[in-house]
Amino acid sequence: MAIERNLKLLLAYDGSAYNGFQRQANAVAVQNVLEDRLSRIFGERISLRAAGRTDAGVHALGQVVSFTTTGSIPTASIVRAAASVLPPDIVVRSAEEVPPEFDALRAHRKTYVYRLWCGEPSPFLRNFAWQLGQPLNVSAVRVGLAYLLGTHDFTSFRTGSDKTPTRTVYRADLDVDGDELRFTFRANGFLYHMARNFVGTLAEVGLGQRKATELGAILSARDRAAAGRTAPAAGLYLMSVDYVPLKIDD
Amino acid sequence: MAIERNLKLLLAYDGSAYNGFQRQANAVAVQNVLEDRLSRIFGERISLRAAGRTDAGVHALGQVVSFTTTGSIPTASIVRAAASVLPPDIVVRSAEEVPPEFDALRAHRKTYVYRLWCGEPSPFLRNFAWQLGQPLNVSAVRVGLAYLLGTHDFTSFRTGSDKTPTRTVYRADLDVDGDELRFTFRANGFLYHMARNFVGTLAEVGLGQRKATELGAILSARDRAAAGRTAPAAGLYLMSVDYVPLKIDD
Repeated sequence: MAIERNLKLLLAYDGSAYNGFQRQANAVAVQNVLEDRLSRIFGERISLRAAGRTDAGVHALGQVVSFTTTGSIPTASIVRAAASVLPPDIVVRSAEEVPPEFDALRAHRKTYVYRLWCGEPSPFLRNFAWQLGQPLNVSAVRVGLAYLLGTHDFTSFRTGSDKTPTRTVYRADLDVDGDELRFTFRANGFLYHMARNFVGTLAEVGLGQRKATELGAILSARDRAAAGRTAPAAGLYLMSVDYVPLKIDD
Repeated sequence: MAIERNLKLLLAYDGSAYNGFQRQANAVAVQNVLEDRLSRIFGERISLRAAGRTDAGVHALGQVVSFTTTGSIPTASIVRAAASVLPPDIVVRSAEEVPPEFDALRAHRKTYVYRLWCGEPSPFLRNFAWQLGQPLNVSAVRVGLAYLLGTHDFTSFRTGSDKTPTRTVYRADLDVDGDELRFTFRANGFLYHMARNFVGTLAEVGLGQRKATELGAILSARDRAAAGRTAPAAGLYLMSVDYVPLKIDD
């Protein structure tokens, strides 16, 4: 009798050409391509569960998916087999067998990075960063970032109204590398557009259009209209997903 | 009467979508797009002269073109006007008026960078580096690089047989940045595929398929078959072009 395995894949993809991660009927999403190609390898229909539903144009270095299969390909051969059937903008970085109870959807924490480019326009960054084209006041942005840490009702930073709006942000950092500002956000979950709304609002702070100290009032308002714009999808990367509770200062 | 200006543009482009720089009748080259869009800005047909004919898939951060025009747009407005008509994978970085005798074709030195990636496959590098997928012996590659410095007959490293095969290489360096090896070549001119044939041959040295000390014999052979493979176009970048003689140790 065929043995059923529960498998976990670590994925990287360039989201530029896809209409987001989640499978769709009338558009090409990363999940459509992955499920179709993995089904060939496993000889049966594969249905993925994923840690994050990245939007159109959003990228991943550490997306996690899981699925069960009775297909016979050895776990150690999956990475190479996937490379032979997937387009080069989707890469299976690793594959491992996990206990039956593992579900990629049930992440404890996710970490996103957002790349904001303040230098001259670059043809190489058009799909990979927000090209703002002007410098930001980094100190002001850092003051603003601190307001986002901790457990809050993030209604002001979500687009739409999915689920409960309370999330815990463990990390909200800014690294400066020449003309590039790199934001890192780690939370127990992200509301729709939350990371991009953080960055859009903080960019307004960095441009002097808002005070950093307004961030507290924006959170309290619980009103999307109180916060700033949604930063473009191209700058956002799902970096990693954690499935075990970590210490807050990790 | 209209005043004729001689203009010099500094260009960056992502060459992934183009069939090289040079204008072609039955394919889209960077020059086709540039000349068509610049002609709109200047209100007359623009014909470019360029420092380097980059191949299909080769990129530029510092390509230089020049052209004469009687169009009236102020020189200071060209960068912004170009951004409004060019696709985002071609950027005019700067524009300046130059003396009538300036000709972008008559470069004194050009500098190319080649990016070779030895790490795990990345969806973000498929158009931007050679993904070799295995580590190289960096010390051996550096020994090989030193043979390329100076004035030599580079017949063994050219594809085809354009012009005289003697060139002077001023710089042949390797920088290591994590899993990325970055070659820099500066010369008074590059034969067809010369930089890519350097890298293809040096990769064979780094993989232990050739000895670094063979490079001398390869040069002396004046035979393309004596050297190694041509590295893929995706890793190559035209970084800068010099029009005044510089000191060798610049």
